[in-house]
Amino acid sequence: MRVASEQIEFRSDVTVELVRHSASDADVLFAARVSTQGEQTLEAASSGVEASERDRGLINYLMRDRHGSPFEHNSLTFYVQAPIFVFREFMRHRIASYNEESGRYRELRPVFYVPGPERKLVQVGKPGAYEFEDGTPEQTALVHDEVVAVCTQAYESYQRMLEAGVAREVARAVLPVTLYSSMYVTMNARSLMNFLSLRTKREGTHFPSFPQREIEMVAEKMEDLWKPLMPMTADTFDQNGRVAP
Amino acid sequence: MRVASEQIEFRSDVTVELVRHSASDADVLFAARVSTQGEQTLEAASSGVEASERDRGLINYLMRDRHGSPFEHNSLTFYVQAPIFVFREFMRHRIASYNEESGRYRELRPVFYVPGPERKLVQVGKPGAYEFEDGTPEQTALVHDEVVAVCTQAYESYQRMLEAGVAREVARAVLPVTLYSSMYVTMNARSLMNFLSLRTKREGTHFPSFPQREIEMVAEKMEDLWKPLMPMTADTFDQNGRVAP
Amino acid sequence: MRVASEQIEFRSDVTVELVRHSASDADVLFAARVSTQGEQTLEAASSGVEASERDRGLINYLMRDRHGSPFEHNSLTFYVQAPIFVFREFMRHRIASYNEESGRYRELRPVFYVPGPERKLVQVGKPGAYEFEDGTPEQTALVHDEVVAVCTQAYESYQRMLEAGVAREVARAVLPVTLYSSMYVTMNARSLMNFLSLRTKREGTHFPSFPQREIEMVAEKMEDLWKPLMPMTADTFDQNGRVAP
Amino acid sequence: MRVASEQIEFRSDVTVELVRHSASDADVLFAARVSTQGEQTLEAASSGVEASERDRGLINYLMRDRHGSPFEHNSLTFYVQAPIFVFREFMRHRIASYNEESGRYRELRPVFYVPGPERKLVQVGKPGAYEFEDGTPEQTALVHDEVVAVCTQAYESYQRMLEAGVAREVARAVLPVTLYSSMYVTMNARSLMNFLSLRTKREGTHFPSFPQREIEMVAEKMEDLWKPLMPMTADTFDQNGRVAP
Repeated sequence: MRVASEQIEFRSDVTVELVRHSASDADVLFAARVSTQGEQTLEAASSGVEASERDRGLINYLMRDRHGSPFEHNSLTFYVQAPIFVFREFMRHRIASYNEESGRYRELRPVFYVPGPERKLVQVGKPGAYEFEDGTPEQTALVHDEVVAVCTQAYESYQRMLEAGVAREVARAVLPVTLYSSMYVTMNARSLMNFLSLRTKREGTHFPSFPQREIEMVAEKMEDLWKPLMPMTADTFDQNGRVAP
Repeated sequence: MRVASEQIEFRSDVTVELVRHSASDADVLFAARVSTQGEQTLEAASSGVEASERDRGLINYLMRDRHGSPFEHNSLTFYVQAPIFVFREFMRHRIASYNEESGRYRELRPVFYVPGPERKLVQVGKPGAYEFEDGTPEQTALVHDEVVAVCTQAYESYQRMLEAGVAREVARAVLPVTLYSSMYVTMNARSLMNFLSLRTKREGTHFPSFPQREIEMVAEKMEDLWKPLMPMTADTFDQNGRVAP
Repeated sequence: MRVASEQIEFRSDVTVELVRHSASDADVLFAARVSTQGEQTLEAASSGVEASERDRGLINYLMRDRHGSPFEHNSLTFYVQAPIFVFREFMRHRIASYNEESGRYRELRPVFYVPGPERKLVQVGKPGAYEFEDGTPEQTALVHDEVVAVCTQAYESYQRMLEAGVAREVARAVLPVTLYSSMYVTMNARSLMNFLSLRTKREGTHFPSFPQREIEMVAEKMEDLWKPLMPMTADTFDQNGRVAP
Repeated sequence: MRVASEQIEFRSDVTVELVRHSASDADVLFAARVSTQGEQTLEAASSGVEASERDRGLINYLMRDRHGSPFEHNSLTFYVQAPIFVFREFMRHRIASYNEESGRYRELRPVFYVPGPERKLVQVGKPGAYEFEDGTPEQTALVHDEVVAVCTQAYESYQRMLEAGVAREVARAVLPVTLYSSMYVTMNARSLMNFLSLRTKREGTHFPSFPQREIEMVAEKMEDLWKPLMPMTADTFDQNGRVAP
C-alpha cells in the first residue's frame, strides 16, 4: 500500500483564495462614461481616482436597468479547493476561465469531503423547492461512516492499480465525486454576480434559487472576497434583488 | 438493500445518438454568400438547393482561411451516455449547451463504466506526449476487479444512505467518477470541429492532441453522425489538418 | 455616374425572415427531463410528441426559477435587413452567430433608411429614461430632406471613387450609418429572449428598457416569427415579466 | 451652425492606450501547474516570482499543443479610438467586453478618419487573396477630397437636425462610417492572440489572413502594448505560426 489508510484526510470545508484581481467600482464608472462622455474618461481612469458617494447613483442605475457591460472590465482569479461534485456544477458557468488539477497528469491526493455536523441532510418538499432539515444523530453518523469507508476502500484500490503500473487516468475511475480537487477560476464581476445569483440564497434575493449547500459555501467565500473590492457594486447588487445585470 | 449487487451493470462502451439537427453544407454556403452577394441568397436558401461539387472550393477556402462564422448557422443535438469523468472533460467546452442528468433530482442508476479488454492501460513517455500500451492480462484483470468491487461497495453505500432518509445530493458523494451519466448537448459545426480537433487523434491531424480514450470514443461517434450531414465540410476539415476554422 | 441619383432607394422599414429553425416547446421539455428522468427521454424526443397543456407548468417553473439551459437546445436563423446603426447595436449580443454583407467583398447597394412619418423624433426626459414625442411637421420634413440629401451626395461620392479605381473598402468610408445592410443571425431561444428583454418594451416587462425604435422594430418582427414555434415558452416569458431565464 | 466647418477634424491614425492590465507570463505558468502540481502552486503565485528562461519550454508546449486555458487568467483593458468601420469588424470578436461611445447619449464630435498618403488604395487579385497597391496621386487626392467633402456636409446636416430639436439617435443617421468613435475593450491574452491572428499579417503567420489595413493598425498597436507584459507568450505565439492556442 503506497498510502496507509490513516493518511487519508477527511475535511468538511471548502477553501477559496483570491489570487489576483483588477477590480474596482471606479472601473465600472470609467467604462460607463465612455458611452456618455467619450475621451475625457481616460485621464480620470489613469489618475487612480476612487468612486465617490455621488457615483453610487450611476452604478445603481446600471445595475437596475441591466446595463451589464460596464461590470465586465475587471478580472478576479480565485483558487478553489472543493469536492469534484461542486466543480461539476461550477463549470456549467461558461463565462469564466478554468484550470483544474488533472487526474491524467498527476496522482490525486487522498483528501475527501465528508459532510460536517451542521450540514442539513434531509430533503423535504417538492422538486424545485426542496427544503433541508437537520439529520438525526444516526443519519449524521451513518453519512460520516459511509463516506469514510467508501473513500478509504476506493483510494486503496486506486493505489493498488497505480502500483501495478496502470495509468493514472484509468485508475482514477474508482475515485468518488467527493474527492477534493483544486482549480484556478477567473471571472469578471458581471459573471460573478450571475454565479452568486444562482448559487447563493442570501437575503433579498429576487428570484428563488436552491443551490446545493457545498457550492453555496464556495460562492459565499467568493462573495466575501469580492465585496471589499467593489463595495458599491456589491451593495447595489443586493439592493436590486441580487439579479445580475 | 434496495438494489441487489447483481443488479449493478458494468459496461465498456459509450453511446451517442443524434436527437435533432439542422445542418447541411448548403447552410454554410448561404451564410458565406451573404457577405459577398447580399439579398439574392435568401431565395436560394429557401429553395432547398443542395451544395454541388463546384461549391466545394468555397467551403475549402472558408476552412483554410479560417472564416469560421459561416459554419455556425446550424445546430446538432446529441444524447450522450458516458462516465462522469468523460463529462468532466466534455463540459470544459464552453461553446455548447448542456443538460445533464442530476444527482440532486433523481436517484442515480447503478451503471458503471469498466475499461474493456482492448483499452490500453499502460502509459509510457513523458507528459504532453504520453503513449499508451496494452496492459498485461494481470493488469486487465486487476482493473476489472477493482472497478467492480469499488463500484459495488459504493453503490450499496449510496443505497443504505437513501434508505436511511439521507438526501440524494448528499448520498451521491460516495459514487465513483466512472458512474454513467447522460446528457443532451447542442453544438454548431464550428464548435464541434474544435471539439473534434482536441478530442480525437485521427489521421491527418495538424496539431498534436492526446485525448483520453473514453472521450475520444464519444468524439468519434459524434463525428460519424455529423459527417453524412455535412460531407463537404467534414472532408475539407480533414484536408486542412483537422484544424477548426 | 454609375448610379443615377434617382436610382437611390429610401425605405422606412426593416425586414426579418425566418430562414431555418429547429425549435419547439417539446425540445425544452425533453432537455429538462434529462435532469430528472434520464434515458427514457430519448424515445419521447424522437417520437415527435408535442408539448401538452400539462407541460406548461414545467416550462413556467424553468422560466421563473431561471433554469435557462433547457431553452438552449434549439436554433433559429433569421435574415435581417436593417440600417447599419441597428446592426451596430445588434452585434453587441455575443451569444449568437452572424454573417453580414461585406463592404470589402461587394459593392454596396444604394438603399438607405429614412425615418417614416410615425417615427417619434423628439427626445424628452433625462438620460436612462428618455421618452420620445412626435416631431412637428417641420422636423419631420427636415429629417427626411437631410437624410435624402446627405445619402445621395455620399453615394455619388462612393461611386466616383469606385469609378476611379479606388478599393471598395476605402470608398465605403463616406457611406452613412443609415445605409441598409443584411445579415444572417442564428440564435437559440434563451439568447433570443435576452435580446427581446433588452430591445423591446412590450407590456409587462419587469425591468425598464429603452431600446432605439429601429432595433425594436427588428426585435418585434423576430418575436412574432418565434412565438408560434414555441408558444408556451413565449407565453411564460411574458408572464414572468419578460426576464430571460 | 453650431460647429463651423473649419472645426471639423480629419485624422489618418488610430490610437490605442493600455488602461489597465493584470497579465504576465508567470500567471500562465501558475495556471498550467494547477493541472500538474495542485496546491503548491498558490504559494508561488502570491510570491511574485517571475517566469524564468527554463519556463519557456512549458509555455511553448502549451502554445504548440493548444492548451489554451492557461492563457486566459489575465486581463487587458484598452482604450481605442478608430473609425466606426473598424469597430464594426472589431466587435465581431465575441470573447471580449466592450463599452463604446454612444450616439444616443451624447453628441458625437466632428472627427473623421481620412486615409493618409501611405494607405494603399487599389485592390488587385481575386476575392480572398486581394493585394493592395499604392494609388496614383490623382486617386489619393480624390479620396481625400471626397471624404472631406462628404463628412463636412454630413456633419453640418447632423448639426442642423440637432439645432432643430431632433433626437441625437435620429440625427446621427447621416454620419458616415469613417466617423471616429472610442471604446473600452477588455480581453484576455488567448482572445487577444486570436484577434491578432486574424487581424494582422505579420511575418511568420501560418494561416493566411487579409485584414483591412485600418483594423490592422489597431491590432499592431495592441500587440506592441501587450508584448512587453507577456514576452515569452508573445515569442512562442510568433514561433508557432501566430496560431492562437
